[in-house]
Amino acid sequence: MFSFLRSVKERDPAARSYLQIILFYPGVKAIFWYRIAHFLYKIKLKLLAECIMYFVRMVHGIEIHPAANIGKRLFIDHGMGVVIGETAVIGDDCTMYHGATLGGTGKEHCKRHPTVGNNVMIGAGAKVLGNISIGDNAKIGANAVVTRDVPAGATVVGTTGRIIIRD
Amino acid sequence: MFSFLRSVKERDPAARSYLQIILFYPGVKAIFWYRIAHFLYKIKLKLLAECIMYFVRMVHGIEIHPAANIGKRLFIDHGMGVVIGETAVIGDDCTMYHGATLGGTGKEHCKRHPTVGNNVMIGAGAKVLGNISIGDNAKIGANAVVTRDVPAGATVVGTTGRIIIRD
Amino acid sequence: MFSFLRSVKERDPAARSYLQIILFYPGVKAIFWYRIAHFLYKIKLKLLAECIMYFVRMVHGIEIHPAANIGKRLFIDHGMGVVIGETAVIGDDCTMYHGATLGGTGKEHCKRHPTVGNNVMIGAGAKVLGNISIGDNAKIGANAVVTRDVPAGATVVGTTGRIIIRD
Repeated sequence: MFSFLRSVKERDPAARSYLQIILFYPGVKAIFWYRIAHFLYKIKLKLLAECIMYFVRMVHGIEIHPAANIGKRLFIDHGMGVVIGETAVIGDDCTMYHGATLGGTGKEHCKRHPTVGNNVMIGAGAKVLGNISIGDNAKIGANAVVTRDVPAGATVVGTTGRIIIRD
Repeated sequence: MFSFLRSVKERDPAARSYLQIILFYPGVKAIFWYRIAHFLYKIKLKLLAECIMYFVRMVHGIEIHPAANIGKRLFIDHGMGVVIGETAVIGDDCTMYHGATLGGTGKEHCKRHPTVGNNVMIGAGAKVLGNISIGDNAKIGANAVVTRDVPAGATVVGTTGRIIIRD
Repeated sequence: MFSFLRSVKERDPAARSYLQIILFYPGVKAIFWYRIAHFLYKIKLKLLAECIMYFVRMVHGIEIHPAANIGKRLFIDHGMGVVIGETAVIGDDCTMYHGATLGGTGKEHCKRHPTVGNNVMIGAGAKVLGNISIGDNAKIGANAVVTRDVPAGATVVGTTGRIIIRD
């Protein structure tokens, strides 16, 4: 637990103290409750687990399916609009920003959400969709849409906005 | 009402039971309250209608203007950040994901939001803007920006992220 | 204060009355609380300031760091998922839509968020990242990703969705 708080402090330049992180970081609270809900889901208390994550989404704006498998020290920064699907798998030390989604394409069954390696960064608004693999240390840029495997160490970017009119 | 719940269960592989859908699906609750607010808006209880939808947005993160016209069985999945504007029109059996927006461009007056046909899918984060038409059975991909008419049956995609660096 | 409400009414065609704007506009409430939190932050009551903005995010879905510098009459429309970072600077009369982000790239320290001029419009879902400048009267389109300076008066667009399949 403490290694998680320390890693958040290292990853967020706006973090001032552990007290502040514990009190006011929605992504830290969401993961805390996910750990409890995930345990309850595994021992078949599914409705209770879903109830907890329903309230987490209501209060913090972060939606994590209690059946998802999430490794150590996932830091969800800002977090509003994050969605992590039922069959998503996430490794250790990953970072996700607000609006980042590990979702489905609607074309697959059973395992239909991404498998994400260790130390992966998923930028704000990025949509990672389908039963694909994101390799260790990969970085997904803001608003990028990813529907194919990404090799370890790769950086994926969407299109940068271009200037079309000047005064 | 029951046909709506059944259609949600068919459309979402993570749905386990009707009880779960009624209790924990924000998009189902938002549409329930929208139906009431839309009725109140039409009989000129506008401030009350807006009050209801204000609280729906606060609790569920889904913003629907009470004057919007929405057909049967709209399923808003996940839903955080969805915006449906005042003059938007939506047909039957449509599906919208979180962050999907039926908004304006700021250049039009009166009818300034999209008209969406039947059985249309609007992906996560997609922004459909202006007084345009989206034809029946069209699919709008995640994060796509749409500012022109889309013919029936068409699929619209934004740009897929591309890999720019590998280890 | 009144000039702010009047400017909101002018900018939003869906606004019917000042009463409605005061009661039901999340972006108006968020800015009201930000002004108080920003004052508290400057007199070193940082934890209290962060607490206020934590609750604003929880209730309204809008995240503004209390240390950010925001000019007069910023109108945040819809607002769910907006993030304004610690070292962001915003001029007067700007408009931001839901999901718009003034964030960091993770590569910079100290001043690591954008500086935005006067009368700038930032569209829904747009991500403006890094210590860059956005000139007066610029417009950033929906879902655009901006990581370089934008000159005054320019319009920046992301990629418009393209049709890939027709019936």
